[in-house]
Amino acid sequence: METKSQMRDEKYAADISSIREAQVRISPFIHKTPVLSSETLNSIAGRKLHFKCECFQKGGAFKFRGACNAIFSLNDDQAAKGVVTHSSGNHAAALSLAAKLRGIAAYIVIPKNAPKCKVENVIRYNGQVIWSEPPMRSREDMATKVLQETGAVLVHPYNDGHIISGQGTISLELLEQAPQIDTIIVPISGGGLISGVALAAKSINPAIRVLAAEPKGANDAAQSKGAGRIITLPETNTIADGLRAFLGDLTWPIVRDFVDDIITVEDKDIIEAMRLCYEILKVAVEPSGAIGLAAVLSDDFRNNLAWKDCNNIGIILSGGNVDLGVLWDSFLK
Amino acid sequence: METKSQMRDEKYAADISSIREAQVRISPFIHKTPVLSSETLNSIAGRKLHFKCECFQKGGAFKFRGACNAIFSLNDDQAAKGVVTHSSGNHAAALSLAAKLRGIAAYIVIPKNAPKCKVENVIRYNGQVIWSEPPMRSREDMATKVLQETGAVLVHPYNDGHIISGQGTISLELLEQAPQIDTIIVPISGGGLISGVALAAKSINPAIRVLAAEPKGANDAAQSKGAGRIITLPETNTIADGLRAFLGDLTWPIVRDFVDDIITVEDKDIIEAMRLCYEILKVAVEPSGAIGLAAVLSDDFRNNLAWKDCNNIGIILSGGNVDLGVLWDSFLK
Repeated sequence: METKSQMRDEKYAADISSIREAQVRISPFIHKTPVLSSETLNSIAGRKLHFKCECFQKGGAFKFRGACNAIFSLNDDQAAKGVVTHSSGNHAAALSLAAKLRGIAAYIVIPKNAPKCKVENVIRYNGQVIWSEPPMRSREDMATKVLQETGAVLVHPYNDGHIISGQGTISLELLEQAPQIDTIIVPISGGGLISGVALAAKSINPAIRVLAAEPKGANDAAQSKGAGRIITLPETNTIADGLRAFLGDLTWPIVRDFVDDIITVEDKDIIEAMRLCYEILKVAVEPSGAIGLAAVLSDDFRNNLAWKDCNNIGIILSGGNVDLGVLWDSFLK
Repeated sequence: METKSQMRDEKYAADISSIREAQVRISPFIHKTPVLSSETLNSIAGRKLHFKCECFQKGGAFKFRGACNAIFSLNDDQAAKGVVTHSSGNHAAALSLAAKLRGIAAYIVIPKNAPKCKVENVIRYNGQVIWSEPPMRSREDMATKVLQETGAVLVHPYNDGHIISGQGTISLELLEQAPQIDTIIVPISGGGLISGVALAAKSINPAIRVLAAEPKGANDAAQSKGAGRIITLPETNTIADGLRAFLGDLTWPIVRDFVDDIITVEDKDIIEAMRLCYEILKVAVEPSGAIGLAAVLSDDFRNNLAWKDCNNIGIILSGGNVDLGVLWDSFLK
């Protein structure tokens, strides 16, 4: 396995081989999530939509795939000292659960403003919560401190080859479940999910289009694609709490080379997409998870001639960890 | 096919043959719904739970199976005059959709107090809404009037062999998807769903236990089983708007002979089960749909020695048509 990994293209942190290896490694632990469809939503969108329900994944989000791959790739000496991460929530819960399954410690640095249900998930899975101030710098500093004290292995939420490979297993499943798919729309934040999904999908079928969906109030990835280099923002402003991270040095080259375009959407359209998921699909999706549907329904996508041939669209509903009160309040605004 | 049906046991309105025929008839139209599971809910329940997600069925409820079977069993002369029904909502939407697929008229008598989202579903599927007063008598009278004026065929929501056979297809799918199931828990109202489910399940494996879940405020089925005859109630009082009907002369003999027990639950426990479905399974389930989980978590079930060997329980999440505001309000009470 290591040999194969060493053979991979030096330019990227993962490839179809590492993704297939991840699938074998994590398949005893993950849910193979269903793909749902709705004639009503098809007729609203004017295309056939195939919803890959990662909200039903263990821990309530796709993050468990990458976390599981990272944890079960550790050797025994590494594993004995545990793992540490800083995270907006879903990666934290996922890493806690994967660590619990392997019987090792997970030290989780969480910003004080994380959604309650995401913190509860960490505690449910025996993660050891260490609070930090919200800014990413504070979170990283606290994680480094824990790492120095415990000798634990840092598992970055997205800028990590094992994480990217784990998330890529979604494409392997999705294209087996709905082989007619010609386009996949994926939420983008730090880029771990879309990097894995794009590498696997394009390797299986180079004609598949991979599009990112990003909040207008955290459009660093769109700006990065435009500038040809990683752009970070002084601040972000979006209801999608899972989409506030910036691209890393491992995810950026993959996003640069394999993501066909980035569609940015307003928060109000994310909320409307959440409502459609709830009312029509009967699925609880968090704001970050609903953004793919919002993108498909946006004027920017509908009116772009480049995408008029996207007839069978895979939409990754990336997570479902949303407090019901938050959902309800957002509908009233 | 008619010949086979005529061969069935005279005592019952359906059997495994009519249910297998229904499966062939409706499979081009229905969703094969997924079975979800959650380690968290397993550990809360102390058993393995397998959730059959009929909330993802077309129209948002299992009712589409029976409606589809009834509509596509009509001959062309019958079909030309359309169909009529009175319904608390999900059957109405299902019949409208099935009629739309066959290109025939559906006249839907709906009580004025039906949930808004259920009425919207009828309209979405081109059903012709005819309002009535809430009592069942008023609804039936109005349906008879429409029937006389149009010559349409009455498709009863549950007291109908085709309806029962259609709902029974759930067992065929569920026992293929999760063959280890030893118990199935099913919401009971008029008895169409549980009749089909019980006939099919017991035919495939006579050792499978089939239990009904019923609201304490509409416990006519439990009273009927106790009395050995159909009992109706002067009024019902439950949040589960889909579970207020009484057994019919076709469903009663099946419930009497094939349902092992009826577990009654309080509305507050139904609401708690809805919350668990939302927060942990990430699935929107209406009160009637969540009652099976409420039953499994009830003290009556946990403490009953007769059910201590129920280790793999299939729970039918029968529908997901719930207004989000209603859901939220119920959590605050």
